[in-house]
Amino acid sequence: MKTRNEALARDASDPLRGLKAQFELPAGVIYLDGNSLGVLPKATAARVQDVIAREWGQDLIKSWNTADWMHLPERVGDKIARLVGAAPGELIVADSTSLNLYKVLAAAIRIAQADAPERKLIVSERSNFPTDLYIAESLCAQHGLTLKLVDSVDEIPSTLNADLAVLMLTEVNYRTGYRHDMAALTAAAQAAGALTIWDLAHSAGAVPVDLNGAKADFAIGCGYKYLNGGPGAPAFVWVHPRHTDRFWQPLSGWMGHAAPFQFTPGYQPAPGVRRYVCGTPSVIASSALECGVDTLLAAEPLGGMAALREKSLALTEAFAALAEQRCGELGVYVVSPREAARRGSQVCLALHAPLEQAGYAVVQALIARGVIGDFRAGDPARLAEVPHILRFGFTPLYIGFAEVWDAVEHLRQVLASGEWQEARFNEKSAVT
Amino acid sequence: MKTRNEALARDASDPLRGLKAQFELPAGVIYLDGNSLGVLPKATAARVQDVIAREWGQDLIKSWNTADWMHLPERVGDKIARLVGAAPGELIVADSTSLNLYKVLAAAIRIAQADAPERKLIVSERSNFPTDLYIAESLCAQHGLTLKLVDSVDEIPSTLNADLAVLMLTEVNYRTGYRHDMAALTAAAQAAGALTIWDLAHSAGAVPVDLNGAKADFAIGCGYKYLNGGPGAPAFVWVHPRHTDRFWQPLSGWMGHAAPFQFTPGYQPAPGVRRYVCGTPSVIASSALECGVDTLLAAEPLGGMAALREKSLALTEAFAALAEQRCGELGVYVVSPREAARRGSQVCLALHAPLEQAGYAVVQALIARGVIGDFRAGDPARLAEVPHILRFGFTPLYIGFAEVWDAVEHLRQVLASGEWQEARFNEKSAVT
Repeated sequence: MKTRNEALARDASDPLRGLKAQFELPAGVIYLDGNSLGVLPKATAARVQDVIAREWGQDLIKSWNTADWMHLPERVGDKIARLVGAAPGELIVADSTSLNLYKVLAAAIRIAQADAPERKLIVSERSNFPTDLYIAESLCAQHGLTLKLVDSVDEIPSTLNADLAVLMLTEVNYRTGYRHDMAALTAAAQAAGALTIWDLAHSAGAVPVDLNGAKADFAIGCGYKYLNGGPGAPAFVWVHPRHTDRFWQPLSGWMGHAAPFQFTPGYQPAPGVRRYVCGTPSVIASSALECGVDTLLAAEPLGGMAALREKSLALTEAFAALAEQRCGELGVYVVSPREAARRGSQVCLALHAPLEQAGYAVVQALIARGVIGDFRAGDPARLAEVPHILRFGFTPLYIGFAEVWDAVEHLRQVLASGEWQEARFNEKSAVT
Repeated sequence: MKTRNEALARDASDPLRGLKAQFELPAGVIYLDGNSLGVLPKATAARVQDVIAREWGQDLIKSWNTADWMHLPERVGDKIARLVGAAPGELIVADSTSLNLYKVLAAAIRIAQADAPERKLIVSERSNFPTDLYIAESLCAQHGLTLKLVDSVDEIPSTLNADLAVLMLTEVNYRTGYRHDMAALTAAAQAAGALTIWDLAHSAGAVPVDLNGAKADFAIGCGYKYLNGGPGAPAFVWVHPRHTDRFWQPLSGWMGHAAPFQFTPGYQPAPGVRRYVCGTPSVIASSALECGVDTLLAAEPLGGMAALREKSLALTEAFAALAEQRCGELGVYVVSPREAARRGSQVCLALHAPLEQAGYAVVQALIARGVIGDFRAGDPARLAEVPHILRFGFTPLYIGFAEVWDAVEHLRQVLASGEWQEARFNEKSAVT
């Protein structure tokens, strides 16, 4: 892509360009942070108003039946299943990503302790999203297991051995956008006798996922990023049918009971993945999430996730190439993998010395210009290996090539003009 | 109350009658199920629209700062604290009641195991709401403890001994409306060396609660009943400051971390009750809950929970007395305690033989007439002791004395006419 006109031409011939009309996008903004919080679908406000005014306000408790609130976890879950290679009935919407990880990791540990109690290691990456590590830390302490963190992808194969109980990875890294080879790692971990848990927070709705094709064991994911479910939207959980009915998960609330309205003591888990529901789910939040998921299903007649992925890769490749071509001399380099198969739907940039500390200010200067990305701090002790990151997400549902061009141009101007040095420091950051 | 005119006169002189204007109530309905799902506040729709259209739609991730989404758990929590005798900063909104029980019971078990590892019993009531028992069952299995269930309140004192680790009770029973003496039981349990957990699902917003006055240890509660937060609203959790910082709770998600945006491995819990937040909370659902809580705080200038309680007791006493007077000969008797101090904000009725199986149909016939209560099944093996229950909740914010009169009159007509025999059986029931 050599000119803005070329970018405009690519947008004009983009078969997915019509999907953008599904969203309310603020004027004057290039929103490259859908990997943190997806944008608002136009359908959401009216749907939520209907839930509030009619289902709740008028029909009140009858709506548990008439609006089938009872099966919202399955109904929205079945829609998400279509995006991640799961079958109907295998995936449900519930709680938060952290809580769903607790459920599946606890279940995986129970299976491991039953089948291979000598395996004492949970392996993950030090660069995994921290909440995953906090939850694993908690469960390891409870069960006398050890959480082993690797510092690079290259170390993972050596951990796939007779000590490994569970390999727990986020498919697409939240910082770098590095995408694991889910099928290969799952096969290798299982060949070594271990179970796998995949966090799809930056995958669901962003890249094609084939959970059943990969024969994965457990997966969880986030509703408020690429699924456009709104801030703090409910999350989801998938369990391979070969595991679902083997054990309870420990968050054994009444909504996961086989007969919640019998009101009897003694937990009897519902068959299938319903047992991964705990308490009463928020009907309003789940309904908003459904609107978000629908914006992705709207791409199915146009090729679905495969078509979205093709566009996503074109966007991220164009952004990375332009950032190098037009901002490389100003200190910018690309952190995210250039190999398409290893890249999620985001591009992370960093700055060479002497600008290695300037990342935060550059992001702030871009936001002031209406280019919204975010900043993720590196490791101050070794910025060369773990640099401060300027993170830009590209959601092909609503981002086009002209915005890629313009974002890079803004970045070039911010650096060339030195205006980033004026950017104010704001201690708080945005939510991943 | 002898006549409908007398009921109308009581409504006319009710100093709280203006509070009803805060709600959207469906026409032609006498809603006596606010103990299952509170009604819709008028403010909620507009507030949620503002969250969706402006905070999310326009301001996107900036709202984590500008709308202070980050501190929604504390902001709404501090408001609920005013209803339950807690201080600012002691109570937060998060997740579901079931999940919050898991957190506090796990914390209580950790404290008990540190201070008195020989104590192996968790005591609760067989008639407690089942999800509480399911969660306790799960944690007992994990920690080698035993869940002991008593069949009557009278058995509780004998369990307060050197074996007891935690006494876990719901203050107001969901079926019968029986209200425990929280202060006395807390003192007795603590005198025996045990900890207490109080589920306030049917208390918060329904009866005055004084957690600090009772020196309780832990409490949880529900947002979608008397707090009018909407279907599946987030729940809350309170921890006495003497316990808060002693241990992590095991659902150690990043939103309860001391520095969530440092993105560092190694869980460091936030000081205070913030550590009881796990994953990212639903902003939409939490904002709706705030509107519901505000409807109760609107009573503060009129005497607050004490004034609401006075009216609640007058409503429930009037309903119970009228049901006996006007429907007693038709088979109705009152299950809920007539002693005011032992009664929550609901009245439960049952039917003598030969109508002991007719409860469900009677509730359906009442619903067909627009009188919405609900049915809770008894124990088929011993209906004399645990009868089928017709449950009616009285929320003094929006229920008046004329509705009490009319509800009893409908009940009388349903029984006298035999129209209940026409009521269709609907397998599903409403959510507690």
